[in-house]
Amino acid sequence: MNIPKSKNPRIVIIGGGFAGLALARALKDKPFQVVLIDKHNYHTFQPLLYQVATGGLEAGSIAYPIRKVMHNHRDFYFRLGMVTQLDPQNHKIIADIGELDYEYLVLATGSKTNFFGNTEIERNAMAMKTIPQSLNIRSLILENFEQALLIKDPAERDSLMNFCLVGGGPTGVELAGALAEMKNAILHKDYPDLDISRMQINLIQSGDRILNTMTQQSSAAAERYLTDLGVKVCKNIRVTGYDGKTITTNSPTTFETATVIWTAGVMGNTPDGIPAASFVEKTERYRVDAFNQVAGYDNIFAIGDIALMATEPFPLGHPMLAQPAMQQGKLLAQNLISRSKGLPMKPFVYNDKGSMATIGRNKAVVDLPRRHFHGVFAWFVWMFVHLISLIGFKNKAVVFTNWAYNYIRFDREGRLIIRPYKRKSFYAFTSDEV
Amino acid sequence: MNIPKSKNPRIVIIGGGFAGLALARALKDKPFQVVLIDKHNYHTFQPLLYQVATGGLEAGSIAYPIRKVMHNHRDFYFRLGMVTQLDPQNHKIIADIGELDYEYLVLATGSKTNFFGNTEIERNAMAMKTIPQSLNIRSLILENFEQALLIKDPAERDSLMNFCLVGGGPTGVELAGALAEMKNAILHKDYPDLDISRMQINLIQSGDRILNTMTQQSSAAAERYLTDLGVKVCKNIRVTGYDGKTITTNSPTTFETATVIWTAGVMGNTPDGIPAASFVEKTERYRVDAFNQVAGYDNIFAIGDIALMATEPFPLGHPMLAQPAMQQGKLLAQNLISRSKGLPMKPFVYNDKGSMATIGRNKAVVDLPRRHFHGVFAWFVWMFVHLISLIGFKNKAVVFTNWAYNYIRFDREGRLIIRPYKRKSFYAFTSDEV
Repeated sequence: MNIPKSKNPRIVIIGGGFAGLALARALKDKPFQVVLIDKHNYHTFQPLLYQVATGGLEAGSIAYPIRKVMHNHRDFYFRLGMVTQLDPQNHKIIADIGELDYEYLVLATGSKTNFFGNTEIERNAMAMKTIPQSLNIRSLILENFEQALLIKDPAERDSLMNFCLVGGGPTGVELAGALAEMKNAILHKDYPDLDISRMQINLIQSGDRILNTMTQQSSAAAERYLTDLGVKVCKNIRVTGYDGKTITTNSPTTFETATVIWTAGVMGNTPDGIPAASFVEKTERYRVDAFNQVAGYDNIFAIGDIALMATEPFPLGHPMLAQPAMQQGKLLAQNLISRSKGLPMKPFVYNDKGSMATIGRNKAVVDLPRRHFHGVFAWFVWMFVHLISLIGFKNKAVVFTNWAYNYIRFDREGRLIIRPYKRKSFYAFTSDEV
Repeated sequence: MNIPKSKNPRIVIIGGGFAGLALARALKDKPFQVVLIDKHNYHTFQPLLYQVATGGLEAGSIAYPIRKVMHNHRDFYFRLGMVTQLDPQNHKIIADIGELDYEYLVLATGSKTNFFGNTEIERNAMAMKTIPQSLNIRSLILENFEQALLIKDPAERDSLMNFCLVGGGPTGVELAGALAEMKNAILHKDYPDLDISRMQINLIQSGDRILNTMTQQSSAAAERYLTDLGVKVCKNIRVTGYDGKTITTNSPTTFETATVIWTAGVMGNTPDGIPAASFVEKTERYRVDAFNQVAGYDNIFAIGDIALMATEPFPLGHPMLAQPAMQQGKLLAQNLISRSKGLPMKPFVYNDKGSMATIGRNKAVVDLPRRHFHGVFAWFVWMFVHLISLIGFKNKAVVFTNWAYNYIRFDREGRLIIRPYKRKSFYAFTSDEV
């Protein structure tokens, strides 16, 4: 990978998400050589992916160039590449851009969509964990309506206008709310020659409540908000299959739909090379101790979604969110420094700042450690927290401009099919255009 | 295409660019059924494509949903599709989404890159006429540097950092200036482990001056600006070939480069079906009379880049720019209305508001009909004119925010490889991510 030897020990960080980037930033000008590898050259602010998928924000507003974040870091190297294999025995990693040895390895590869082994669903449903995936969803939503206009068969037309979201977590809830707002405020104006009232938004949840990691009150409020917006919340239904036309479930209920967005689960994004003993098969997360050290290795750490730290309050590991990821990244930086000085490392204690979800304009739910609330104020809290969490002044300013405009005009102007998702032949695009 | 019959005669407009959109907007609620067909669902503000290609603006800031522009137009229909064949005899068009008959047909299909029949160059060079093409160029520029980091052979590394722009018109000049500003202000910070001073920007012009449609003074000023920024302006050199590695020219001069951006010419984007007699082979533009009527047809019109109206001041047709296109679109709307009332049509007279080009911060050239100037004031004029020309308040606000930020910070943060251009295997992206 063309990285010079340094007098400082080399830390290789795989992944520039919330965890990896927090670690890399906290190691600025410390006595380490830091190498950060990611398959994208940008950091993604995942909490707002659903707004890109629904045309509320441009992709560039929630992406930030990793190299820019790391300007003026001494002895730091970024490499754009895909790590395919870990080789702990020889203390090196293998990527599509070459091999690299390390003194310390930090796995911050995050999570990917979990289809629980159902390849049929994986083949036919949409995932929304990356910006390209969100842009694909944005295209597909719009392409469905363009196609519906051309179709005479009512059943086929309805299935193009039936959007099924599987999984009632924050992503599914926020996406369902955004789609409902598109239906209510925009689509009937964009498609006057379509009967938009026939558009359906089904949120399918296997459990008996949505947002089941939040309080009962927040779940109830979110469900009420969604129902008011016209979303059909289907609880206690487990999706068992989707062939591209029909969703089958563990009940007699089926759904005829051209669009399934799968937000029902995530799993660790693990490169090969760490023996199964060190991670939990089911969720593909690495078993780590209180110092984020991967079980069985002295110089390999895992932070963020990929790390499963079983503790008293979180026997199944911390929630796979930005907060634990960033906190683990920051602490690991301190611990690596302490360790290099022969000082003891500090165990990780998660500072739970609470969780929140937005359903639509003036509609959000917030759970703080001590109290919970919902409504307009919750919505402003949600916006403020997400706005200040964005990296970079320009992104903050542009996102604020968009939100202000969208709020005042009940609009989202990013409804652009810039990367067509469906088979290219449908619109006969020439290769240089897709 | 599922378009209902109407009591009003049907006007089919092919193309939602400056000409087609101006016509469609001017026909609001007039006694016609208007059908607008475009292969994109958005209008592209082409003058700013080069800023998307260089990360200064997001694609969404210069694209605008066509359906949104046409909200509340009575008896109006938009269709997303690609017209493949015209059938004047039977008064119908054939597209990938079906056939449609018309009373009036308006061709506003614009122009595409003209490689003058050199398929080798066409295969290996980049074009920049659409948003997807601009995003491909953005990716390629960044991918070149990421790849250069991994390469030990100096010659190969240099060719990855050698950007050759063929064609000294506004597009080539503006792109060259933007690339030079990236080199001077950003790339050495982004790639501290690369010798960015070895980056070359060559602007290759076959004629003896760049911006040859503007005044001598503007050409000279633009060349001086480019040279000051570090662009090598190569005049009187005609590119004869490019095999993906080496540019050959009509002189002993050659260029070793991995990147050629071709802005040397445009040609009409003509669907099949109009006999050659009606258009000029060389530039593929339809020969039209003073009413934009295509030679030989009573109910077929052509407006914008695609129309060649030979007039006294413009024997070879009007410049292929936004202004003549919009003016022709507006006038044709009036003429179609007059004609439907049995009134005479008005001949088109081009109101030349002048032309301008920007080279970099505080550096632009402006030619007005009576006077010309350059420098800081010209640059502000350029920005103001482009800002107010953008459709939609949100785009204006977002572009202004970006420009203000980029100006203050000497930055352009859109340097994101969201749609990798090079063979996917290079970064081993999985299909759902590209």
